Amino acid sequence: MKGSIFIVSAPSGAGKTTLCKRLTEVMPRIVHSISYTTRQAREGEVDGRDYFFVDESRFMKMVGAGEFLEWAEVHGNLYGTSRTRLFETVQEGIDVILDIDTQGAAQIRQKGIDATFIFVLPPSMDILKERLSSRRTDSEDVIARRLEKAREEIGDYRLYDYVIVNDRLDVALNELGSVVLSKRLHISRVDHGWIKETFGLEGDAL
Amino acid sequence: MKGSIFIVSAPSGAGKTTLCKRLTEVMPRIVHSISYTTRQAREGEVDGRDYFFVDESRFMKMVGAGEFLEWAEVHGNLYGTSRTRLFETVQEGIDVILDIDTQGAAQIRQKGIDATFIFVLPPSMDILKERLSSRRTDSEDVIARRLEKAREEIGDYRLYDYVIVNDRLDVALNELGSVVLSKRLHISRVDHGWIKETFGLEGDAL
Repeated sequence: MKGSIFIVSAPSGAGKTTLCKRLTEVMPRIVHSISYTTRQAREGEVDGRDYFFVDESRFMKMVGAGEFLEWAEVHGNLYGTSRTRLFETVQEGIDVILDIDTQGAAQIRQKGIDATFIFVLPPSMDILKERLSSRRTDSEDVIARRLEKAREEIGDYRLYDYVIVNDRLDVALNELGSVVLSKRLHISRVDHGWIKETFGLEGDAL
Repeated sequence: MKGSIFIVSAPSGAGKTTLCKRLTEVMPRIVHSISYTTRQAREGEVDGRDYFFVDESRFMKMVGAGEFLEWAEVHGNLYGTSRTRLFETVQEGIDVILDIDTQGAAQIRQKGIDATFIFVLPPSMDILKERLSSRRTDSEDVIARRLEKAREEIGDYRLYDYVIVNDRLDVALNELGSVVLSKRLHISRVDHGWIKETFGLEGDAL
């Protein structure tokens, strides 16, 4: 049985990355897709675990070779998802969670790829502002730009299949887990061979 | 926001009724629909809590008056779901779980009513046999008839949206809860007014 693809988008500061990481820690058979990016590694980030950090020339070569399922420029940096990696994982029956922005999600949607689209909202605009301000690594200028972009991105929530409001992390995590678990129980993921064999649906007697 | 309708079917002995009852105990804002039936009350069953127990003549009058959203004969007894009760509850924003057989589910499906269809399977045919035999109230004859009918009903699982294998009650309960919770998070259930207001989607500045 093939795995499923889950696309998670959110305005920066909604807590999407933490949510996705926690999910893969508490749930079996789901991994977080590792994106390629041209942005600088932040303190504590590890190449090959958090991102594949590459320079712009390498990134654009990959774009040219059609290696990205989606790619986008976000706040001046490039981000992309490798097509081969993703499909290999899904083929092994592992679910993959893609933590990508609304532009990337739109590309996946346009390509008609079978995926479940989830939008994560902050509980309020004030809380989003607070969360963005407490991340000390970014300047006021960057924060202001992100807030403006956040509202733009939030407008896209209608294109998603599910909406999760990330107020308390444990509640939001349980909700995200429910979306993944219910997908696994969906008729499109059911092991028909097992049912047929177990209940002798085309056999003779009980 | 309106509630949702969840249809749960299973062969007799799969543990469907226990599962549905437990769910309404542990989850807020979901109730178990109470069916009308002509069958005799079993020990411990209470009229108006487990079923509305009515005689056949009263039941057939209700059929004639179009009061049933679905009704069916199961093992010689009649069972039906009141249309008015169901829609009133959903209108109040409460989810309703209908624990009905495959015939009843087919009627709901044919009427094009917006509902989520869930099929509960026993982990194996042997376990189903065991479970049916340990229910002392039924004769061997009844058990044999039920087993035969069980296999027939299981063949219908393909028509459902979700399949849950009830091996361990706590696991199956969590799975059923996930299906309900994910439906609540679905874009079709989202409070668009709240999002618009909270993030000023059509307003001016941040």
